[in-house]
Amino acid sequence: MTEGEHGTRAAPGADEPPAARGPRERMVRAAAELIQSQGVSGTGLRAVVARAEAPRGSLQHYFPGGKDQLVSEALRSMGALAGRGVGRVLAGLEQPSPAALFAGIVDRWRQAFLADGFDAGCPLVAAASDVAAASDRLRAVIADAFTLWGEPLTEALVAAGVDAPRAEQLATVLIAALEGAIVLARVHRDVGPLDAVVAELTPLLEVAG
Amino acid sequence: MTEGEHGTRAAPGADEPPAARGPRERMVRAAAELIQSQGVSGTGLRAVVARAEAPRGSLQHYFPGGKDQLVSEALRSMGALAGRGVGRVLAGLEQPSPAALFAGIVDRWRQAFLADGFDAGCPLVAAASDVAAASDRLRAVIADAFTLWGEPLTEALVAAGVDAPRAEQLATVLIAALEGAIVLARVHRDVGPLDAVVAELTPLLEVAG
Repeated sequence: MTEGEHGTRAAPGADEPPAARGPRERMVRAAAELIQSQGVSGTGLRAVVARAEAPRGSLQHYFPGGKDQLVSEALRSMGALAGRGVGRVLAGLEQPSPAALFAGIVDRWRQAFLADGFDAGCPLVAAASDVAAASDRLRAVIADAFTLWGEPLTEALVAAGVDAPRAEQLATVLIAALEGAIVLARVHRDVGPLDAVVAELTPLLEVAG
Repeated sequence: MTEGEHGTRAAPGADEPPAARGPRERMVRAAAELIQSQGVSGTGLRAVVARAEAPRGSLQHYFPGGKDQLVSEALRSMGALAGRGVGRVLAGLEQPSPAALFAGIVDRWRQAFLADGFDAGCPLVAAASDVAAASDRLRAVIADAFTLWGEPLTEALVAAGVDAPRAEQLATVLIAALEGAIVLARVHRDVGPLDAVVAELTPLLEVAG
């Protein structure tokens, strides 16, 4: 496989203060960022340690469970980050509605792509693609991480007026559409697919609130 | 990373006669199937040759461009297969409509998951996740492969009554939603996300025709 520059960035929602991070937290974050651009199989432990500027040997110290443990923590942390991102978008809406909520969530990815380029995608999709079939334990971790995103989205949809029984199904569809659009945006190096899902789903969401 | 059984299957639409395949074609298909469950980085050339039951050394013979060439052909062939699948679904509809077309396309994945399990996903999403950032050449191949699927879908939507200017955008959204739902279905080992996108998008599609 051709080697090249792996530009990475934190996912939208990564607006947490970086200052107080210790080596352990930096390694989790570095793993997540590398997975975003090159998947789990392509993410080497040496690269994680180097990116995190962590002391040699610290990986063994902080993650006795090895790569599985590090990857699991990275994926869960990114799911939780996405979940907090939903809360931030909801809190920023003057008039909460399902359409405005979805547009706001998609816009975080749109802005990130425009600012940082298209190298980094969703680490949960990357992990689902290359390790979910081989490791049932990691598959369950990815499922948990999606739940850490999906549950706050379901709650936010209810807060924006969607009937509770429907909100969970709608959250699944919005996450699916966004994830697929992120893949297409990366592949085409164009935010058009993100704009397309917002344009097509807005009328649906306008009658869902 | 934990090693395990890599169950793989051909993508929906893979209902082509397997009989007359030579070693070259078998290697392309084997590469696609392995990418479906473990990504490009996780797919080794030895495993491809073994799965294809191809003679040793045949890889070098048929694919002088190495793994990049093999992966490129695998991804393009799967994009084309998905495109032909759209045509088959359209041809099978008594009364073509955008909603019936989408439900039929999703149902091919649904049936495949129920029959073969959840190990194999879309090889284009897998490749986008682990090599698109590192190789601009492979990224362009993935984009082409998505186009081999998206263009027939756009044409089928027009045939089902969608205005031409909107059909392309709608095709993008349907592919995005399906791809995201495939990821979620694999992760949860449940076809629920596929049912969810059909349920939520059907009302939208019913007024698009």
